[in-house]
Amino acid sequence: MTARIVVDVMGGDNAPHEIVAGALMAAGGLGCELILVGREAWILQELQGTAEIPGLRVVNAPDVIEMDASIDTVRARPEASINVGLQLVKRGEADAFVTAGNTGATMAAALLGLGRIKGISRPALATVFPTATGQICIYLDVGANADSKPRQLVQFAYMGAAYMERTYGLSGPRVGLLSIGEEDTKGSQVVIETNAELRESRLNFSGNIEGRDLMQGVVDVAVMDGFTGNVVLKTIEGMAELMFNELRQVVERTPWNRAAGLILMSELRKVRRRLDYTEYGGAQLFGVDGVVVIGHGRSNARAVFSAIKAARDAVQNGVVEVLREVAEEIPAKRGRGEAEVEE
Amino acid sequence: MTARIVVDVMGGDNAPHEIVAGALMAAGGLGCELILVGREAWILQELQGTAEIPGLRVVNAPDVIEMDASIDTVRARPEASINVGLQLVKRGEADAFVTAGNTGATMAAALLGLGRIKGISRPALATVFPTATGQICIYLDVGANADSKPRQLVQFAYMGAAYMERTYGLSGPRVGLLSIGEEDTKGSQVVIETNAELRESRLNFSGNIEGRDLMQGVVDVAVMDGFTGNVVLKTIEGMAELMFNELRQVVERTPWNRAAGLILMSELRKVRRRLDYTEYGGAQLFGVDGVVVIGHGRSNARAVFSAIKAARDAVQNGVVEVLREVAEEIPAKRGRGEAEVEE
Repeated sequence: MTARIVVDVMGGDNAPHEIVAGALMAAGGLGCELILVGREAWILQELQGTAEIPGLRVVNAPDVIEMDASIDTVRARPEASINVGLQLVKRGEADAFVTAGNTGATMAAALLGLGRIKGISRPALATVFPTATGQICIYLDVGANADSKPRQLVQFAYMGAAYMERTYGLSGPRVGLLSIGEEDTKGSQVVIETNAELRESRLNFSGNIEGRDLMQGVVDVAVMDGFTGNVVLKTIEGMAELMFNELRQVVERTPWNRAAGLILMSELRKVRRRLDYTEYGGAQLFGVDGVVVIGHGRSNARAVFSAIKAARDAVQNGVVEVLREVAEEIPAKRGRGEAEVEE
Repeated sequence: MTARIVVDVMGGDNAPHEIVAGALMAAGGLGCELILVGREAWILQELQGTAEIPGLRVVNAPDVIEMDASIDTVRARPEASINVGLQLVKRGEADAFVTAGNTGATMAAALLGLGRIKGISRPALATVFPTATGQICIYLDVGANADSKPRQLVQFAYMGAAYMERTYGLSGPRVGLLSIGEEDTKGSQVVIETNAELRESRLNFSGNIEGRDLMQGVVDVAVMDGFTGNVVLKTIEGMAELMFNELRQVVERTPWNRAAGLILMSELRKVRRRLDYTEYGGAQLFGVDGVVVIGHGRSNARAVFSAIKAARDAVQNGVVEVLREVAEEIPAKRGRGEAEVEE
């Protein structure tokens, strides 16, 4: 089965140009069907001079949602590319939705358009990042929710573990909970309660981990609340920029340094790419009932290509089906008379 | 006035050897009086073969507190180096306390031994880090508190700004609040409320910043809760390790790369040091009534030296006096009938 992937041409700082360029790369190389959604006139202009591409079609969506759109705005604008695109997935006319648009608006639209997987209170944004051992670690939530409850973090843990099992073939992936000390009693109240619930779960729970452990390959799944996760991701980005900036200054300092820099340049570029999480296809929204991939707002064509590839892989690996299965299995919250609030 | 600095010889993974070595470096180069506190026999053994050093004396503290000591343990062990050392500061026999020991135990001991500055509900751990513009940014809280209230974050902002004014001579330092979006309404509930309070303050508040902005020199003071701050610091550490690890692999790959690496090595070492926050003297505990500097648990002699230097500078700059003044000036919480809880 060929994966049919909707690409939101209007989302992101470099829309529509880089988005269409990325889609063209994917059409050529990924063997999936692409549906470009956005202002038809703009898309056709971008495609001008391009020969007809098999497996690529355009769906008009005349409206565009601003970066800081509220949920009400998202709801009120059915003609926006984000809503038109998600409806294609909802109606079964496509298998996945890819955007470099605003995370909050995308999440709101996905919740409205696709709904949640039964048993999951809140979706989580998940992204993968390399470690010093060469393995991959998945971080979630990296920004879908600003405040999270222990129950929700536990659900994130189950979803992350199921994803790593299915996608990377790991058996019993190691799950860590991001905190500020390894002891079970260290951390915020939310983290301490989450730790206790994860200790009782069937997951291969390694306990709390610290920020430094994220890059050391000690776990396969790093569970965190969306506030912390977003800060972690942006800090990683900032550090990579800062370090390559410093490197560039070193290399430009003397003629000898410049010569040395020339020798190392192509390999340093590879390192830079390896440490750029947008290379891994951006972030996936776990917990909504469909494949949704959100690229970085600053995505260029290459990053869009990666996001489309990630969506294709998620479709082919049946990620949503796996998450539906695991959601049924997550133990319900233990009593204390506390009602689960499901917004 | 020569600053008199207590060094906790028993704290840290490399105690007592590296601590004493760092103190000896400082005694030689910093022009301050050092008081080494810990098991006298151990210290004397470390000092064996060293000529009598003017301005360096030893105070015996027979007890040692374990890394994971509870507040009750700290309270129950007056003979521990951490308590003996802080009492010297309390009694005015010393001006500052330096340790590479456990942060939680140090904070508990400092609160018990020195008390809080009037007007500050909770101390904050503060550390400085370089930015791409070459300027320095102070981050606080980086781990003194696992959960924080808006009121406390506002106090951190005032203390951080006062410190940067006094220590770096900045006029109206730019204060940013770490969040997950620049808009005032983005972030956790705690952050949103803090943003509103900072908007009304007399501080030069730049609004919310994101993780990436920390390294870009857009603010001089970055306010964050201690959970997030600790994760940020450890993530920075992990990223620096990961990147230098990648660099090493690149340099070792071919003979040409090795030659290029040799040319760049000494400058790359400098970059590595510039991006190592322990080089900046570890972290200072703001809000307790005395100068307390906490080095990284893995501090080597060089890091201990930096921590002692940071303590000396804080004494000479009258940091505690400045923080006392600013604490009086922080506007009291606006009503809503909510009582301020002071643990």
